[in-house]
Amino acid sequence: MTKRIAIIGAGTAGLHLGLLLRQHDIPVTIITDRKPADMASGRLLNTVAHHHVTLAREKALGIDHWPAEEYGYFGHDHYVGGPQPMQFWGSFSQPSRAVDYRIYLPQLMNDFVERGGDIRYQQVTESQVSDLSREFDLIVVGTGKGVFGQMFKHITELSPYEKPQRALCVGLYKGVAPTQPRSTAMSSAPGQGELIAIPTLTFSGMSTALLMENVHGGDLEVLARLNYEADPNAFLDTLLAKLEKHHPTVYERIDQNVFDLCQPLDILQGGVVPTVRQPYTELANGRFAIAVGDVQSVVDPVVGQGANMASYSAWVLGHAIINEAVYDKRFCEKVERERQDRILAASKWTNAMLAPPSEAFLSLLAAMEQNQDIRDEFTENFSFPERQWDRLASDERIHAWLAEAGAFSQESVPQSQMA
Amino acid sequence: MTKRIAIIGAGTAGLHLGLLLRQHDIPVTIITDRKPADMASGRLLNTVAHHHVTLAREKALGIDHWPAEEYGYFGHDHYVGGPQPMQFWGSFSQPSRAVDYRIYLPQLMNDFVERGGDIRYQQVTESQVSDLSREFDLIVVGTGKGVFGQMFKHITELSPYEKPQRALCVGLYKGVAPTQPRSTAMSSAPGQGELIAIPTLTFSGMSTALLMENVHGGDLEVLARLNYEADPNAFLDTLLAKLEKHHPTVYERIDQNVFDLCQPLDILQGGVVPTVRQPYTELANGRFAIAVGDVQSVVDPVVGQGANMASYSAWVLGHAIINEAVYDKRFCEKVERERQDRILAASKWTNAMLAPPSEAFLSLLAAMEQNQDIRDEFTENFSFPERQWDRLASDERIHAWLAEAGAFSQESVPQSQMA
Repeated sequence: MTKRIAIIGAGTAGLHLGLLLRQHDIPVTIITDRKPADMASGRLLNTVAHHHVTLAREKALGIDHWPAEEYGYFGHDHYVGGPQPMQFWGSFSQPSRAVDYRIYLPQLMNDFVERGGDIRYQQVTESQVSDLSREFDLIVVGTGKGVFGQMFKHITELSPYEKPQRALCVGLYKGVAPTQPRSTAMSSAPGQGELIAIPTLTFSGMSTALLMENVHGGDLEVLARLNYEADPNAFLDTLLAKLEKHHPTVYERIDQNVFDLCQPLDILQGGVVPTVRQPYTELANGRFAIAVGDVQSVVDPVVGQGANMASYSAWVLGHAIINEAVYDKRFCEKVERERQDRILAASKWTNAMLAPPSEAFLSLLAAMEQNQDIRDEFTENFSFPERQWDRLASDERIHAWLAEAGAFSQESVPQSQMA
Repeated sequence: MTKRIAIIGAGTAGLHLGLLLRQHDIPVTIITDRKPADMASGRLLNTVAHHHVTLAREKALGIDHWPAEEYGYFGHDHYVGGPQPMQFWGSFSQPSRAVDYRIYLPQLMNDFVERGGDIRYQQVTESQVSDLSREFDLIVVGTGKGVFGQMFKHITELSPYEKPQRALCVGLYKGVAPTQPRSTAMSSAPGQGELIAIPTLTFSGMSTALLMENVHGGDLEVLARLNYEADPNAFLDTLLAKLEKHHPTVYERIDQNVFDLCQPLDILQGGVVPTVRQPYTELANGRFAIAVGDVQSVVDPVVGQGANMASYSAWVLGHAIINEAVYDKRFCEKVERERQDRILAASKWTNAMLAPPSEAFLSLLAAMEQNQDIRDEFTENFSFPERQWDRLASDERIHAWLAEAGAFSQESVPQSQMA
């Protein structure tokens, strides 16, 4: 029984898995078409926070190059607009941390190669898949690009949306004052969308990622289309005007004399269709390909779960590879059963946050403003989406949480405030 | 949040669940159309062995009226016929035990009522389901009879067979000498089927259940159709002739002067279509019905998993009811995720045992004859079907097991010996 593992894609899932397997001297080959230098000099890839469960895996892998104590943040500053705005702060038990992936991924690729990992820089065509399945005992797929995206079918009942639910405009900005203690702002403009302002380590040092989640057809949607490069000042003026109107607590932190992208390529616009796919597939020769990361489940970034699920999925899969000898259908089923709860909970919770809030959820927000235990649990659960979903999966569960916490169920909060 | 639980059906799943909930003072109503006295005086219901994990649950429930030390058996006597017959004995870590369900179920119904459980004797029509869903917070369905069978849809990919795979003829017999130590005989006649001879506590004391699993179109199939009542001697003569030819090690234990059914109704003939169904369903008012036992997964009795899975499923569900406050879709998903591995493994393993054996499985049988560790693990795993399936799910796994145990992979055993 040999353990020859191929990983397609050098994202968080592929690299955390590759590094874990190298810790156990298992031969592993990562196949990617993105060279570290091209990645580092290219456009912003995303804005990603690693929560403490993910940081703990990084420590275990010996890749904690950016300690959270120095670069991290300690909780969420919530602001919910409307006629009677709500504002509250929720604490993590341990800090989260965001690093520009154009710094993060090349460093991990370097670590991987230094530890005996093999990287092949190539695109994989359909005809090469059967060669790979002869050469390797298991193919791990961490990218949905090209032939591999089609290998794993959509699961319709877990993929409720056919279009992006937010028009995204994400960038790295200078001129946004940090909060004390350092925190991520979660500003919600009822009917218009969300702004997540994340303290992020960038090529320019610590700056702020503004992740704008704009409702389609709303006042902020234009930000996902405005061309920064064509007219930087027009872009920034529009952005500032929108922030002032819809996200005042972040707007107040901005020094307009300095406010700008850190670098010209520090902006990304577009949208994500939340999609859950079949977690594994049998190849023509009877071997298996198993999905990790965005191939298995891609989520909107609104509650910052994507990269954390990718790392978690890689971790579960990696330990199964280490502990098991045979990589057959039963192996894939067991891996899936072990990781599925957290991954699907992250997807369901994220999708629920994109939908208009229920009366029960509005009651919960009102209770969070009053009750430290509830808001801290909600915040801590960014590391444990399955626990968050245990709390939020139905209105009945939310009411049970409020009752358990001794909070009033404030059913008088008007629906219109958040719709 | 109230906990009002209805259980439809008074089989092993329903009664173990009901008794567990009563231990925790949770109000529970069992609804069944079978009165204990009718059951006790009726035809044989089945032949069922409880393995030690199930017996441990009975102890925890305080219903161990038939201690395994006294009534149980300690392992499996295997006989595999063919040109070169194989014979070997595998040990349990702790004994299994079989009691006629016409004794077992009425006793547990009595225990349940004594402990404050409510039993309603009625059939449930379709129109009554909505009344029940208003009266109870959760409906547990443990019978596939009537309206409830249709509520849970077949899962096609887990239900590979459309017809029974064996023509069954099961009966309780006197005149079969027990083995020393007491054991269940598992006799396999290649191409013809299996005979499982189970030491069983009956209304006549300890006797022997002969569970004949006859291949359709084979020499033994007639036993599933022969009418005992019409001509007992003809039935017994035919049975003896077939046993002599196909199951010689059990035949040798028979005293022909005494051999007969213990009582006239101690025989049941027919077949089972192995079927896995959706584990839960949403009712019209938003409450849920969740399946246990045969409704969720009905298996052929060949490896004695049905009742043990019913008890296990009830146990997982019962603890979830005790620990959780809300019985919504998330609740059902979590229960299902927790119990699914063992229950589906039992189904897949059972189905695999009904199919013609692979070369790898024949090698395993040959290795079992030589290697005590392998045959004991195979035997012990009757309590842990998920571990059995870890060993048997693919030929690659069987070869890995043989390699791990240092056994030769005897690929020379001819396929024809078991087909």
